Amino acid sequence: MSLLQGFSHFKHFNVSSPAEFVAHVEINRPQKLNAFFEDMWIEVGKIFDQLSYDPNVRAIVLSGAGERAFTAGLDVQAASESGLTSNSAVDGARRATVQRRHILEFQEWITKIEKCEKPTIAVLHGISFGLAIDMASCCDIRICSKDTKLSVKEVDIGLAADIGTLSRLPKLVGSLSWVKELALSARIFGAEEALAFGLVSQVHENKAKSVEAAFKLASLIASKSPVAVQGTKELVNHARDNTVADSLRYTAVWNSAMLQSDDVKSALLSGLKKTKPRFEKL
Amino acid sequence: MSLLQGFSHFKHFNVSSPAEFVAHVEINRPQKLNAFFEDMWIEVGKIFDQLSYDPNVRAIVLSGAGERAFTAGLDVQAASESGLTSNSAVDGARRATVQRRHILEFQEWITKIEKCEKPTIAVLHGISFGLAIDMASCCDIRICSKDTKLSVKEVDIGLAADIGTLSRLPKLVGSLSWVKELALSARIFGAEEALAFGLVSQVHENKAKSVEAAFKLASLIASKSPVAVQGTKELVNHARDNTVADSLRYTAVWNSAMLQSDDVKSALLSGLKKTKPRFEKL
Amino acid sequence: MSLLQGFSHFKHFNVSSPAEFVAHVEINRPQKLNAFFEDMWIEVGKIFDQLSYDPNVRAIVLSGAGERAFTAGLDVQAASESGLTSNSAVDGARRATVQRRHILEFQEWITKIEKCEKPTIAVLHGISFGLAIDMASCCDIRICSKDTKLSVKEVDIGLAADIGTLSRLPKLVGSLSWVKELALSARIFGAEEALAFGLVSQVHENKAKSVEAAFKLASLIASKSPVAVQGTKELVNHARDNTVADSLRYTAVWNSAMLQSDDVKSALLSGLKKTKPRFEKL
Amino acid sequence: MSLLQGFSHFKHFNVSSPAEFVAHVEINRPQKLNAFFEDMWIEVGKIFDQLSYDPNVRAIVLSGAGERAFTAGLDVQAASESGLTSNSAVDGARRATVQRRHILEFQEWITKIEKCEKPTIAVLHGISFGLAIDMASCCDIRICSKDTKLSVKEVDIGLAADIGTLSRLPKLVGSLSWVKELALSARIFGAEEALAFGLVSQVHENKAKSVEAAFKLASLIASKSPVAVQGTKELVNHARDNTVADSLRYTAVWNSAMLQSDDVKSALLSGLKKTKPRFEKL
Amino acid sequence: MSLLQGFSHFKHFNVSSPAEFVAHVEINRPQKLNAFFEDMWIEVGKIFDQLSYDPNVRAIVLSGAGERAFTAGLDVQAASESGLTSNSAVDGARRATVQRRHILEFQEWITKIEKCEKPTIAVLHGISFGLAIDMASCCDIRICSKDTKLSVKEVDIGLAADIGTLSRLPKLVGSLSWVKELALSARIFGAEEALAFGLVSQVHENKAKSVEAAFKLASLIASKSPVAVQGTKELVNHARDNTVADSLRYTAVWNSAMLQSDDVKSALLSGLKKTKPRFEKL
Amino acid sequence: MSLLQGFSHFKHFNVSSPAEFVAHVEINRPQKLNAFFEDMWIEVGKIFDQLSYDPNVRAIVLSGAGERAFTAGLDVQAASESGLTSNSAVDGARRATVQRRHILEFQEWITKIEKCEKPTIAVLHGISFGLAIDMASCCDIRICSKDTKLSVKEVDIGLAADIGTLSRLPKLVGSLSWVKELALSARIFGAEEALAFGLVSQVHENKAKSVEAAFKLASLIASKSPVAVQGTKELVNHARDNTVADSLRYTAVWNSAMLQSDDVKSALLSGLKKTKPRFEKL
Repeated sequence: MSLLQGFSHFKHFNVSSPAEFVAHVEINRPQKLNAFFEDMWIEVGKIFDQLSYDPNVRAIVLSGAGERAFTAGLDVQAASESGLTSNSAVDGARRATVQRRHILEFQEWITKIEKCEKPTIAVLHGISFGLAIDMASCCDIRICSKDTKLSVKEVDIGLAADIGTLSRLPKLVGSLSWVKELALSARIFGAEEALAFGLVSQVHENKAKSVEAAFKLASLIASKSPVAVQGTKELVNHARDNTVADSLRYTAVWNSAMLQSDDVKSALLSGLKKTKPRFEKL
Repeated sequence: MSLLQGFSHFKHFNVSSPAEFVAHVEINRPQKLNAFFEDMWIEVGKIFDQLSYDPNVRAIVLSGAGERAFTAGLDVQAASESGLTSNSAVDGARRATVQRRHILEFQEWITKIEKCEKPTIAVLHGISFGLAIDMASCCDIRICSKDTKLSVKEVDIGLAADIGTLSRLPKLVGSLSWVKELALSARIFGAEEALAFGLVSQVHENKAKSVEAAFKLASLIASKSPVAVQGTKELVNHARDNTVADSLRYTAVWNSAMLQSDDVKSALLSGLKKTKPRFEKL
Repeated sequence: MSLLQGFSHFKHFNVSSPAEFVAHVEINRPQKLNAFFEDMWIEVGKIFDQLSYDPNVRAIVLSGAGERAFTAGLDVQAASESGLTSNSAVDGARRATVQRRHILEFQEWITKIEKCEKPTIAVLHGISFGLAIDMASCCDIRICSKDTKLSVKEVDIGLAADIGTLSRLPKLVGSLSWVKELALSARIFGAEEALAFGLVSQVHENKAKSVEAAFKLASLIASKSPVAVQGTKELVNHARDNTVADSLRYTAVWNSAMLQSDDVKSALLSGLKKTKPRFEKL
Repeated sequence: MSLLQGFSHFKHFNVSSPAEFVAHVEINRPQKLNAFFEDMWIEVGKIFDQLSYDPNVRAIVLSGAGERAFTAGLDVQAASESGLTSNSAVDGARRATVQRRHILEFQEWITKIEKCEKPTIAVLHGISFGLAIDMASCCDIRICSKDTKLSVKEVDIGLAADIGTLSRLPKLVGSLSWVKELALSARIFGAEEALAFGLVSQVHENKAKSVEAAFKLASLIASKSPVAVQGTKELVNHARDNTVADSLRYTAVWNSAMLQSDDVKSALLSGLKKTKPRFEKL
Repeated sequence: MSLLQGFSHFKHFNVSSPAEFVAHVEINRPQKLNAFFEDMWIEVGKIFDQLSYDPNVRAIVLSGAGERAFTAGLDVQAASESGLTSNSAVDGARRATVQRRHILEFQEWITKIEKCEKPTIAVLHGISFGLAIDMASCCDIRICSKDTKLSVKEVDIGLAADIGTLSRLPKLVGSLSWVKELALSARIFGAEEALAFGLVSQVHENKAKSVEAAFKLASLIASKSPVAVQGTKELVNHARDNTVADSLRYTAVWNSAMLQSDDVKSALLSGLKKTKPRFEKL
Repeated sequence: MSLLQGFSHFKHFNVSSPAEFVAHVEINRPQKLNAFFEDMWIEVGKIFDQLSYDPNVRAIVLSGAGERAFTAGLDVQAASESGLTSNSAVDGARRATVQRRHILEFQEWITKIEKCEKPTIAVLHGISFGLAIDMASCCDIRICSKDTKLSVKEVDIGLAADIGTLSRLPKLVGSLSWVKELALSARIFGAEEALAFGLVSQVHENKAKSVEAAFKLASLIASKSPVAVQGTKELVNHARDNTVADSLRYTAVWNSAMLQSDDVKSALLSGLKKTKPRFEKL
């Protein structure tokens, strides 16, 4: 698997290109169950920011190195050492200000995964706790292996999840009863349940097969018109947060520009000729 | 099956009345897999507009003629001949303006299915691509036969779906991962998957049985108070696009008028007497 | 099972404490299938209002007394005797005003279940019609027994449901087709369907086992940090009605204060020591 | 001036009826510049709640007793004695919870002025600081005397105004620059400025003339159809918080019931006959 | 003044072209103070619909024929004869349905003035009551003559204004106190007040001078790039109903297409050369 | 006037401290009428980002160097040289993508002025065109000198303003008619008109006096509790984009933390003692 140019300086992630126009971002701290500390969420934000405009990338797979975990979530020890959980401001209002700024920045880094213009596929396996759900919720598609152990873990460390899970999960799946049961109890749940309630849309035998399936799906998506694909991502995300009427209005404006591509002609032509279309970079 | 009065002049659709207070709208271009060209989406809009106020209609079934397809979607050949995909405006801004006006009008015609005051049931079978999903998403209830092949097909012709699928689908079903997988890959999926993820709420053995089930459900709905039924449709659609608080406020105003019907008394009385209530036209 | 202090004066509900920090609210009119009249919805509102601030309560279970019904819904006879369905105002506008005020008040009492700061678990069994769905939709988690018979019953008495079902149901489950099918036809559906479409997140063998499961889940939730738990409830409910961006912003402000609790330290510590943490009252 | 029946038990407010269908609510603690403590904001909420449904009242004037002040705002001394500004909860999160509940309740009492179904006119004079702006912002119309001294005073006591001023003021007047200048600096401004920037719509020579003008305007409004008047209030308030499209939709439903009054006929008839119409109670 | 091609068949309006790219729509029923009946609001909707796409029109002036009135509003006599105010449906719910459909249609016709893609300038003079405000509120710019007598007249005929005034006025001007005073009292107000509170942005000596000023302003606007002008109108209207963040997002998409015009170059070039630029039709 | 530490490396802006806790940001390209090119809007964004968290700054004044202009707006020549207005992407869709990314980034840099946590005062003088309005609209308070010449200039260069003016202006001032007149005609307007319609809240004799007034106001604001001041800014900005109900809810959560400051006590104490309070850094 070839490395992707321009991404070799990141320390905690491997960024490679397993197939044409596909990028693979791998969380690389397996000895610590891929647990996150501050440098890591800044890195992951920067990586997706950069991938967003990289013309050689049309679909992205996010997974965790090692057999044991996608990620165990926040590295609580590192967090307490760096002083994130306590702060020395003089009164409650000032402590709250420090805290609020910190949360907003943390959210902003993780949200860059969602803002990336290219479709993203999260592959969950093994332990997938806390921040695992926050990050997977920012991805467009979620796939997991049978052995995955998921948990909205935050109440177990005395706090309400604040990096995105509680904001996004209710809009991703089809049962608010289930979302609340998970988030209020922090209980561990598995792949089957994740599929039944729509959190993931595919389950595979093991991690290797899940990653393989993700690469295949990413390749399929990457073979389509990038104008069509990136527009589709943008419009579904816009729809999630807007009324149908507003979404239709935005869609019409969006496509008023996007239909001026050569991709429609290329796609139609190769459809007729049964050939594989080539699309210009975007 | 008797024709419905006042609808015989439509060329591409059969509009009949299979049961009391039930209308059946059938897309009638089976030799072309019921593929749509501009005249057809104008007609379908006009039909649902007219049904919306027709006092003899209390529930509507939409299906496609022939065994092979509900609809294969946009008739791409007709579209390219009519020049929809290219336009000769002098610069990019003016081309975009032509395009935007066209999309908005197309959306408006299809949205008339959603705006129809009466409950609508889409029966999907066979090939159900592209515009099939746009139209079915405008209906209240979706039923399909086991042989249905569905696809959010638009990325395969180089564009993001812009007639409603991307705006409505995320609010209709319970897995955004699944919605995005379908919309980004254009892969074909079947009845079982459509049921598992909530896109349809019933699957039947074949087209005939599906249409029969739809007629039965439509008849059941048509036997209820039309004041109650049309209010229910309006309030669920309002809820989809508004907060719970706004929805409750709107509901209270709506029912402040609608409880002034004789239907409550009729319904209660026939409930006690075990007779079939008769409700005035609406 | 001990009574909960301060709740003994309620006439139509038993309020007890089956476990530490858990309250059990039981609708107690089994001889009438727990059907509701005006006094009862005022009482249920007052009970949840009071539980909301009771520091001895951290999770609440709502169920119905007797084997036959969670609740059969509105006691139609009582309603017609108290004149709710008819009013003698002089013209249609004035009748509408009386009606609107009545609906808004009724909504407000039932909404107090949703506004209660503590997590709530509805246990449905037997007949669960009309108001049963309105109330269960206000709860955070829904559990039911295999024998449950559910129905959005209102169209059968000639009206659109106006106490919350139509406003909340579309946001609770993952198939709008299914929601509309139920609400437009008033057909009775069972536990399996409720689980498949996400209305409930657990189904148990019978009522006793369902209540037991609810108590167990409530106890689990009540054993967590109340700061974390109540924040989680608030943030998921906020997310349901807001965009992801607004929800993230609200979350950051919320946690800027809530992270200033001792619970994080207690939770981390007992996590390390494998002991059960104790959290201060809230 | 006759007392209004049913309001004599309120201790801190005089509620009288200066003209047919007009109520006058007077803050009655002139010896303390009408400064508010907790009992008072509970009372004012209860009064407007009761007026909202009182069929003998069609318009309401709110003013302050004595020559010196509409109200000097919160009685800071009483507040600190009652312990509002400090609370003894064990940690920052629990202190925040106590605080949040307190603010929400305080907001709720004051918001009852806005929720009152009848049009309300605030008459400001003399010192009108802090809570004066919160309450006047809940009224529909604001009138003041030339001597009025206004101030969004809260930053001077170390806090951001939280009982409604910052939420409502930006939507009431036509210059956000001015709103922020006032709210950030707490500077005192006068009647002329209040008129120029649209906070008030009338300025009169002195308090007596301002109250007189308010009574005259209230009488004029009270002489119109109460169906028309209360609908107008509701629809403008709805419009403030909604898009034009949503507001039009709500308006159509509202008037679908409200046009079924006899008032249209009465109004038209007396318009032709040049007589004063009589409208039924509402 | 030349007639505008394609508009001569309208019966109640004169549509002419007083200057290049400028259309003048004149309400032409001066003998009845330009009062409106159903045919007229359908006509005005059709006219603005047609102007919206007419490439020869870049700015539109709307005024009333005769010296006495812009329009006296709804022709109440015609309305009562056509049965609009009463309807014979069998019960209150069905009467409400007739009424709601009627209001929605009436709103839709008048809203076409707002939806017209080209900038519109209303010139008010003389009597400008009721529907005058509804229609002027749909225009982009309001100019009036000194003699204008304005009134939100609806409460005087026993109803809350439902064709747009209450929905739009609160967002057009800078004093909600003033809006409510007008709408609740129906008092007549003049040009000076309309200017002071921002309802109009210009006042001129008499009707002739006002129309002249409107033509001059329309000509100035019509001399600019139509891509820039129509985009500006669309973006301000979008901003009115959306948050700043949503508006910025929509703006970026809009201009992504619109900056691909030749107009930027033409405008810059003629700016340098001090010549009058020519822009292609749109 | 002392320089502000940590800001000396910015090339196109002078950042100094004219008074305690006050920062002065001066656009420093007077020889070119302070016209902006890309480096400059990146710098201005970075400056306000840094000021946002600088504990030594509690209020900020933004003005332009030299006597002739606040800023003449975009440096069109620089823009065309850097190729911003044209791009070489292969088709219309790809050109639109380049354009959209560029606009979003430009908006983001300018929006940092609005996002700065500290109150900002814009002082306009002389030529204040295009980007001048975009930037001033991001500030909290606007002051100008009598000689100011303002213009929403963009339509004159063939485009709709897309860096914020059209998104923010409709919410800042009290006459949509005036906003549209300005934005559609690009006409130049002066200080008096800006004050009358609420765009600015103060006008002073000349630039020097305007800057002096801004410093004085900034000092006044900086002397207040920073917890109160920054909360006030945040809450007014939140209110602008949300309903009153949502704003009240957000306010309660915000102040639940912010009332835990020592500032309330300090403020009350120095109010009693008539001394100047000292507040801790924030």
